Amino acid sequence: MGYQIVSVDAGQTVFELTPSEHHYNPFSTVHGGMLSTLLDAAMTAAVMTLLPPGKACSTLELKINFIRPVNSRTGVIRAKASIIHAGSRVATVEGRLIDEKEKLYAHATSTCLIITL
Amino acid sequence: MGYQIVSVDAGQTVFELTPSEHHYNPFSTVHGGMLSTLLDAAMTAAVMTLLPPGKACSTLELKINFIRPVNSRTGVIRAKASIIHAGSRVATVEGRLIDEKEKLYAHATSTCLIITL
Amino acid sequence: MGYQIVSVDAGQTVFELTPSEHHYNPFSTVHGGMLSTLLDAAMTAAVMTLLPPGKACSTLELKINFIRPVNSRTGVIRAKASIIHAGSRVATVEGRLIDEKEKLYAHATSTCLIITL
Amino acid sequence: MGYQIVSVDAGQTVFELTPSEHHYNPFSTVHGGMLSTLLDAAMTAAVMTLLPPGKACSTLELKINFIRPVNSRTGVIRAKASIIHAGSRVATVEGRLIDEKEKLYAHATSTCLIITL
Repeated sequence: MGYQIVSVDAGQTVFELTPSEHHYNPFSTVHGGMLSTLLDAAMTAAVMTLLPPGKACSTLELKINFIRPVNSRTGVIRAKASIIHAGSRVATVEGRLIDEKEKLYAHATSTCLIITL
Repeated sequence: MGYQIVSVDAGQTVFELTPSEHHYNPFSTVHGGMLSTLLDAAMTAAVMTLLPPGKACSTLELKINFIRPVNSRTGVIRAKASIIHAGSRVATVEGRLIDEKEKLYAHATSTCLIITL
Repeated sequence: MGYQIVSVDAGQTVFELTPSEHHYNPFSTVHGGMLSTLLDAAMTAAVMTLLPPGKACSTLELKINFIRPVNSRTGVIRAKASIIHAGSRVATVEGRLIDEKEKLYAHATSTCLIITL
Repeated sequence: MGYQIVSVDAGQTVFELTPSEHHYNPFSTVHGGMLSTLLDAAMTAAVMTLLPPGKACSTLELKINFIRPVNSRTGVIRAKASIIHAGSRVATVEGRLIDEKEKLYAHATSTCLIITL
């Protein structure tokens, strides 16, 4: 879907996307599922930064709140993800979707199962 | 993203998608956000079937549980959405993502605000 | 908090509560947390009915939608819980809170981790 | 249920509870619904601090992640709530449940409908 990785640090990531018409739903805004995809990608990556070799994470559930519609006039949007809890079996993580002026478009939390490869 | 509308009835819809490699994440499964998009589309449509003229719905939040990975060997997947509650200000709706043998891949609930156009 | 177990079957349970003033919040309705407690108890029990000896479940997350306020005039309310998915590591379950006329007051889903005792 | 209000500021509140045996579930830990009640109370209050006269809020949904069990040895637990988004029709709010050493026991988000009294 064309997102870029801006930064990846221990427990924190930033991914970005430049919205365009091909991300649109029939209402001429970016489909909520696309925003979920961007947030989920950033949030999963944030969990992975904390895993030892031989471990991976599987997203059990994702919960997203949509605050404002995103369209091509919004400009670049960033998904900023931060770990809330990193356990040995389960991790939880949150994400915020903001524009360049830090205006909020969506926020999410997710629960990930830590699995042994 | 290439989904098809299978059926739209009062409070219930079925949408379907044939998964292919261009829906994949780096782990060679369909990205969770794509499954969210399909479910959200079916669920929003299910709410809209119950709205009088001059009303629309805005998804406030979507919560999805991922049960099994979807890939191109899964075959056609269907998002079946059903209204749980249709109020004058708020509606709630649920969705299940299944394959042709009714095996479950994901399930979701969503809260929609009814707005006057 | 005074709830009763009405029935416990494989993957399905019904618990009930007679709301009274001591369950109230400052707005003279039953506190949402009390409804969460009733639903969570029924949902956790539904998961436990499917576990083999030596296994237990731990609720990772609970998501509840509140549809209508409950008060002492509502009469007996029932939490009906049903398993959605029972896996070896994770189970998901849903619950509905209804009165004697099947009117809906709240609904919930939950993700449980299956643990070895 | 015996919680105390520690502080109430614009968009932020802190409530606390001293867990005791009468909050217990059959597994000798504080019932998840009690933790939900405490978090929901703090979160709803945080929304109310931002409402003009004649407005109230109604919790549409609450999503809580349980991180660690709480019992009487945990000591005092605090629910710290902060507004995420305060709109004219909808507000979202988050809460964290921590002990005196800032150890995390649960976290939640909630969506509230702003209503005219």
